[in-house]
Amino acid sequence: MIDPLDLTRRLIACPSVTPADAGAMAVIAATLESIGFTVHRFAAGEAPDGPVENLFAIRGQGGPHFAFAGHSDVVPPGDGWTTDPFVPEVRGELLYGRGAVDMKGAIAAFIAAAARLEGHPGTISLIITGDEEGPATFGTVALMDWMKARGLCPDFCLVGEPTSTHRLGDMVKIGRRGSVNMWIEHAGTQGHVAYPHLAANPIPPLVRALDALAALHLDDGNAWFQPSNLEITTVDVGNAATNVIPAVARARLNIRFNDEHRGADLVELVRRTVAEHAPAATLRAVISGESFITPPGDFSALISTAIKKVTGLTPELSTTGGTSDARFLSKLCPVVEFGLCNATMHKLDEAVAIPDLHALADIYEEIVRVALAH
Amino acid sequence: MIDPLDLTRRLIACPSVTPADAGAMAVIAATLESIGFTVHRFAAGEAPDGPVENLFAIRGQGGPHFAFAGHSDVVPPGDGWTTDPFVPEVRGELLYGRGAVDMKGAIAAFIAAAARLEGHPGTISLIITGDEEGPATFGTVALMDWMKARGLCPDFCLVGEPTSTHRLGDMVKIGRRGSVNMWIEHAGTQGHVAYPHLAANPIPPLVRALDALAALHLDDGNAWFQPSNLEITTVDVGNAATNVIPAVARARLNIRFNDEHRGADLVELVRRTVAEHAPAATLRAVISGESFITPPGDFSALISTAIKKVTGLTPELSTTGGTSDARFLSKLCPVVEFGLCNATMHKLDEAVAIPDLHALADIYEEIVRVALAH
Ligand SMILES: [Zn+2]
Ligand SMILES: [Zn+2]
Repeated sequence: MIDPLDLTRRLIACPSVTPADAGAMAVIAATLESIGFTVHRFAAGEAPDGPVENLFAIRGQGGPHFAFAGHSDVVPPGDGWTTDPFVPEVRGELLYGRGAVDMKGAIAAFIAAAARLEGHPGTISLIITGDEEGPATFGTVALMDWMKARGLCPDFCLVGEPTSTHRLGDMVKIGRRGSVNMWIEHAGTQGHVAYPHLAANPIPPLVRALDALAALHLDDGNAWFQPSNLEITTVDVGNAATNVIPAVARARLNIRFNDEHRGADLVELVRRTVAEHAPAATLRAVISGESFITPPGDFSALISTAIKKVTGLTPELSTTGGTSDARFLSKLCPVVEFGLCNATMHKLDEAVAIPDLHALADIYEEIVRVALAH
Repeated sequence: MIDPLDLTRRLIACPSVTPADAGAMAVIAATLESIGFTVHRFAAGEAPDGPVENLFAIRGQGGPHFAFAGHSDVVPPGDGWTTDPFVPEVRGELLYGRGAVDMKGAIAAFIAAAARLEGHPGTISLIITGDEEGPATFGTVALMDWMKARGLCPDFCLVGEPTSTHRLGDMVKIGRRGSVNMWIEHAGTQGHVAYPHLAANPIPPLVRALDALAALHLDDGNAWFQPSNLEITTVDVGNAATNVIPAVARARLNIRFNDEHRGADLVELVRRTVAEHAPAATLRAVISGESFITPPGDFSALISTAIKKVTGLTPELSTTGGTSDARFLSKLCPVVEFGLCNATMHKLDEAVAIPDLHALADIYEEIVRVALAH
């Protein structure tokens, strides 16, 4: 028997702010080994974004292969906590500490569930990275390469991100929007405001292009996704002198997009729109991830049934919110994300309801039991 | 006899970077006293923009009253001079040093001219401030208050700014455009790009307003002025996070405007335009100076004739370029600006052609002689 509360406390006590591990992987590894898992660990990457600790654990043989994916790293606590963010503290029904819901609690709940499933048919694996909250360069992607090299590919993957909103079990994520950042730069000719004919102000063409970008209609959303959305996230010239026409103006935007678009097509759309209004502008784009969807089917139905059995709730199948490592794992097999309530994730005084930890272990146990019995 | 070259050298040797005086006023005062002027000096203002040294010198009695206005301060030299900017150095026909043309050379030329005019009818005065290149708060305005309190008001004022371009005498300024700076700020609601419905991005309304401002047509110019011109000088959000919708966006603009506008009317026009596209934006405006014009007439004709007599050139009567203290003095009487070639003003290796110094003294002498004979 593994107590998910006790294990969550031990994990919170490791201040594993990305990319630090601070002993978290050793706690996970020892616990998994104690219940019969074979544990593989490796580090990837170099400072400042690494090295990153990664862990792949496996138990059982043959199919079906059920994988649980998660991350042991946490975002920085920030100033202003009521308690020490890395000293787990129970007050009433709540356990406080950085990572309580995102997502050390979910890792502990899954390990507690796995402990009760000894003797299961098929294979259970855990894909745990220390680089989800950071650039995610040396984490899940490196783990997937490692698995691929060994011919390991799961049939289902459950990502334990905190997807519940008001009550545990009210929301599951069956997809995520993609995300792309673009940087627009417009060079001009610096000069004095009294002699505009000797200068070329880069701001008017840039703001004209930005106005056109802000007015773009990308789509109306669809059955599974909300409409794609473009946000101009900054505009910067940084000219301190009131009498100077600046030499360069810069802007940056982000698009969260649904499965009606590919990142590259959106980059092309933005490039065309900018070129129309600011032909001299240059554009640089970084696609953080494409959108993905695991269309509602057997796997999501199985998860909904397990959630309903334990909590009485029928979860909403959603595609809202930010990105997660599910964007990578979705290339392997059907992926669904389900975990604790996310109200306090990335915030001060992050806390998990202790009854939720136990209920989540029950749900995870039921999901794996049914999935492996197929 | 006063040698304008020698006096310019002694003034350049005083590193009077605004608001420092570094002995410059004492040199001017002693020289003026030696040729019969009564000299009044006072300091105004406090650190960091002051204290500023001001000087008013007067010789003669009754009308007409001819005033020469100028400044003893200089802009910082900057790095990269061939010689020490505060050690005057003659090489060939050129005298190098900060302030050589803007405008210690012109002050020296005027004093040399005044030395030759002893026994003139009427009154000659010099209005010299140490705060023209700075905020101009404690300089000419304070001198005008000082003069007003004593009932001293000139009939003509010649400002010795470097108005010539290619050759000494090719340009005189009979007016200047006004200048107003405006700061626009648009507040929104900060949020995460993945949850735009919980945020309000301030950038789209701001860029829409800026696009409308950039498209404003203020006027077509007129007989004496080029068209008024609006430049957006900066836009700043300063949001480092690619996934954050920012809370505030800011912009700043400058309008150089001719005599078809008053500063306050332009502020109102911008306010209306901004309100139409970005109703939640706030606007702050500072009018640096209204436009002014001394319509071509007796005073400018007299100056043109003197210039032609000495140089053979007929000067262009212009209103181009930046602001000067003439914007204040124009409230007292007709003001015309005329001085040395401005090619090296505010630049590295500022230098004056020594023959120009002597010719300028001759022109100033002729101007004052004719003006006081009226
Ligand atoms: Zn997470
Ligand atoms: Zn000047």
